[in-house]
Amino acid sequence: MKLSRISQLLNEQYHGEDIDIERVGSLEADCKKAILYVENSKYLEKAKARKPAALVIPPGLNTGGIPFIEVEDPKLVFIKLLEIFNPSRNKPDKAYIDKDVKISTEADVKPDVTVMAGAVIMKGVRIGAGSVIYPNCVLEKDCSIGTGTILYSGVIIRERCTVGNDCIIHSGTVVGSDGYGFYEKEGKIIKIPQIGIVEIADRVEIGANCAVDRATVDKTVIGSDTKLDNMVHIAHNVRIGERCLIAAQAGISGSVNIGNHVIILGQAGIADHVSIADNTIILAQSGIPSDVKKAEVLFGTIARPIKEHHRIHAALKYLPDLLKRVKDLESKLEGRTDKY
Amino acid sequence: MKLSRISQLLNEQYHGEDIDIERVGSLEADCKKAILYVENSKYLEKAKARKPAALVIPPGLNTGGIPFIEVEDPKLVFIKLLEIFNPSRNKPDKAYIDKDVKISTEADVKPDVTVMAGAVIMKGVRIGAGSVIYPNCVLEKDCSIGTGTILYSGVIIRERCTVGNDCIIHSGTVVGSDGYGFYEKEGKIIKIPQIGIVEIADRVEIGANCAVDRATVDKTVIGSDTKLDNMVHIAHNVRIGERCLIAAQAGISGSVNIGNHVIILGQAGIADHVSIADNTIILAQSGIPSDVKKAEVLFGTIARPIKEHHRIHAALKYLPDLLKRVKDLESKLEGRTDKY
Amino acid sequence: MKLSRISQLLNEQYHGEDIDIERVGSLEADCKKAILYVENSKYLEKAKARKPAALVIPPGLNTGGIPFIEVEDPKLVFIKLLEIFNPSRNKPDKAYIDKDVKISTEADVKPDVTVMAGAVIMKGVRIGAGSVIYPNCVLEKDCSIGTGTILYSGVIIRERCTVGNDCIIHSGTVVGSDGYGFYEKEGKIIKIPQIGIVEIADRVEIGANCAVDRATVDKTVIGSDTKLDNMVHIAHNVRIGERCLIAAQAGISGSVNIGNHVIILGQAGIADHVSIADNTIILAQSGIPSDVKKAEVLFGTIARPIKEHHRIHAALKYLPDLLKRVKDLESKLEGRTDKY
Repeated sequence: MKLSRISQLLNEQYHGEDIDIERVGSLEADCKKAILYVENSKYLEKAKARKPAALVIPPGLNTGGIPFIEVEDPKLVFIKLLEIFNPSRNKPDKAYIDKDVKISTEADVKPDVTVMAGAVIMKGVRIGAGSVIYPNCVLEKDCSIGTGTILYSGVIIRERCTVGNDCIIHSGTVVGSDGYGFYEKEGKIIKIPQIGIVEIADRVEIGANCAVDRATVDKTVIGSDTKLDNMVHIAHNVRIGERCLIAAQAGISGSVNIGNHVIILGQAGIADHVSIADNTIILAQSGIPSDVKKAEVLFGTIARPIKEHHRIHAALKYLPDLLKRVKDLESKLEGRTDKY
Repeated sequence: MKLSRISQLLNEQYHGEDIDIERVGSLEADCKKAILYVENSKYLEKAKARKPAALVIPPGLNTGGIPFIEVEDPKLVFIKLLEIFNPSRNKPDKAYIDKDVKISTEADVKPDVTVMAGAVIMKGVRIGAGSVIYPNCVLEKDCSIGTGTILYSGVIIRERCTVGNDCIIHSGTVVGSDGYGFYEKEGKIIKIPQIGIVEIADRVEIGANCAVDRATVDKTVIGSDTKLDNMVHIAHNVRIGERCLIAAQAGISGSVNIGNHVIILGQAGIADHVSIADNTIILAQSGIPSDVKKAEVLFGTIARPIKEHHRIHAALKYLPDLLKRVKDLESKLEGRTDKY
Repeated sequence: MKLSRISQLLNEQYHGEDIDIERVGSLEADCKKAILYVENSKYLEKAKARKPAALVIPPGLNTGGIPFIEVEDPKLVFIKLLEIFNPSRNKPDKAYIDKDVKISTEADVKPDVTVMAGAVIMKGVRIGAGSVIYPNCVLEKDCSIGTGTILYSGVIIRERCTVGNDCIIHSGTVVGSDGYGFYEKEGKIIKIPQIGIVEIADRVEIGANCAVDRATVDKTVIGSDTKLDNMVHIAHNVRIGERCLIAAQAGISGSVNIGNHVIILGQAGIADHVSIADNTIILAQSGIPSDVKKAEVLFGTIARPIKEHHRIHAALKYLPDLLKRVKDLESKLEGRTDKY
């Protein structure tokens, strides 16, 4: 693709030679025939050393002769470039329903839906226009998928759960598994039936091999624009707000209530029935045992405000020595006492 | 359903008007036309505020005119109500084997078994009466499933592994993956073949996207009535007793031996070859490096008895300041020494 | 199988009676008719107590009349015995392609490939000679599998990703899910398309229910002979060297660069963009926030050198008491001050 054509698609001016661009480059690899973006001046020299065919730069940088597009927000243009060069084509050029699919005659599949081989669509399922169901997905009875949603291979949506519009769910993820509810009585462990559902709002993305449990009687909710990474566990009755970012292997226990735009990093855990204020940031591997009432940055098990955690972490280095020093003080003072 | 009918099914007396009940309610949501249970007096006012059609209460509470059923154990009645109103019908009304199933002619499938579309049942597999195999499950060669067991969509049981009676295994779980066994010799990493099996006893429940590894030569065992949450990892040669509760994302390393009624909370881990005494409680995110010889409550990495952990956690807040105080003491004492 | 026949297959001399051996035994169970290996003299008595039919021993032990094979490296012989007695036969006796498979006419499937029921092989896929694809796997468009590789049931390889020769990937694992990349701008969360791939080298083994994310533009790489346990998360743009061992539930964040022969134990996590030196050992549940420049053994969140961690851990026990002791010293010194 000519740089002039890219410039046209981006609706941004280009400068220098109108060369051929074959792909989007990365700072980590050779960039022959690639267009590469530079977030800020710090990365300019490294970018030039990759010898890209063209650069996307913020205002005021000197590319030293490499053709370039100068924009206010190079990262945003980078995203557009990825869309332009996307070789994945996550939606097929033309919607189709594979002949090796098992679709119930009582399912409601709207126009322009793609269902690939091996998928099972049970009775009462609804799939909105333009959605794409990859191979070997299972949509159990009466579940519903909005419009423009992609379920990658092997996703399982259990009965009656609902997924919104323009969602992306990655392979191996299970939506609507039973919540973990048991009642111990006289040495017996009795299962509490989990008859609620999961409700996933619009533009939610869920990574690979996650599990989102159905509520006991009501619903587990994931708010719009919230993004989950891989292997995130969402227990029953959890309510997650909008625009939350939850990184890989985080675990959210039962009945937790998470506000809007909460950020939870990898392998962190939240205890059951806890509420988390809007805009809270929970760092990796942290454990949150109780309510977080106002936005702060938390770290550690049991989590503390980040500054407190770092002060303690730094001080711990001196703890073994401190034991000796105190003993020393005690014996000196004791010695002194003896003296008198 | 009339309250009188529910009362009849529960074999419990009702009081007040014989109204219509449409569902089981939750304290977290509006309860119009719902029957709601109150665990104890603490929740009574909140329950009444939800305006339920009827209440299930412990003895001696005043429902203020709301029809009610008074019972010794409201939670147990709640469980029965969930079963009565269960809209999931996890077992079909009538057993069937879908035509889009691949069942080996050399499999032994007992009467009243349901196998849904896309499931693969290989040679030598045995499935006991009344079991239900959801879509896209794979039962590999010579594995065996007891009676009355449910495997939800996408469960994989690898060759020769055995699952007991009345078990529930949730979607995406793998039973019988190879244990992680390698031998390093002269810079090479040699795989140790894992030729044992997994043996799952009766009434075991396993959450979504778990992995239970087969033993190297013998068997990995999960005892009866033990319940695993989502994404639990059980390594090879592990033996878990009866009535254990293992929460989400916990990891049990190779050859661990867990007693009966051990409780392991989320994201906890147990090192290999460790034995855990009956009734031990391991709190969330804890790491257990060595044998637990008698039941206690453990917390932290490396885990300590809970009281010790909490005392240390509380004291840590003062550690950075303590460094200064000791320095101060030292200089005072030093100064004093100088004096003399 | 006669002991003489085993001796012949191993090319090792046997001593004692030429008895029948039915299986490989384990120290954890009764060993009737089994051959059992003894790693060193420490385990000899325990092994004899299991009453095995025969023993594999290191030089110089006395088996007390039990027939034996004496070898330099009993563990290596144990591995050969497991291969001899392997009842799994992970590759079928004769390659076959099940009739219930959906293979694109535009896929390139080499001779001696087995594809079992329910697998979906899309357009442009290449599968090398002798590979085995278990039931319900999905090989998306243009992905490629080397020779002699096994994908167990339910493995998903997303489009354009490549798996090398003689690899083993366990059930439920996803290779090539989108990396977790978002850009926040003016309160909106914009997805960064992930158009790179995953490249898995030769002799790599990946456990059950793992997720390996595709790179943003380039490739996520797993080096040859590296072995991953179950539920390991590998984020986008990660590069892992050769012969690494990564235990269950470990999480590797985006753009991490791991050297050769790095060992990462269970539930450990590495922050994004971190580099880890060759031969580093990261213990269980550790968190690595920054580069590890030379090989050492690290433990804890935030990780420290193991010795430092253990000294601190031991000292922590005395911290609550230390607070009192320092207070005591202060009041004594204060009292003393008053005296003067």
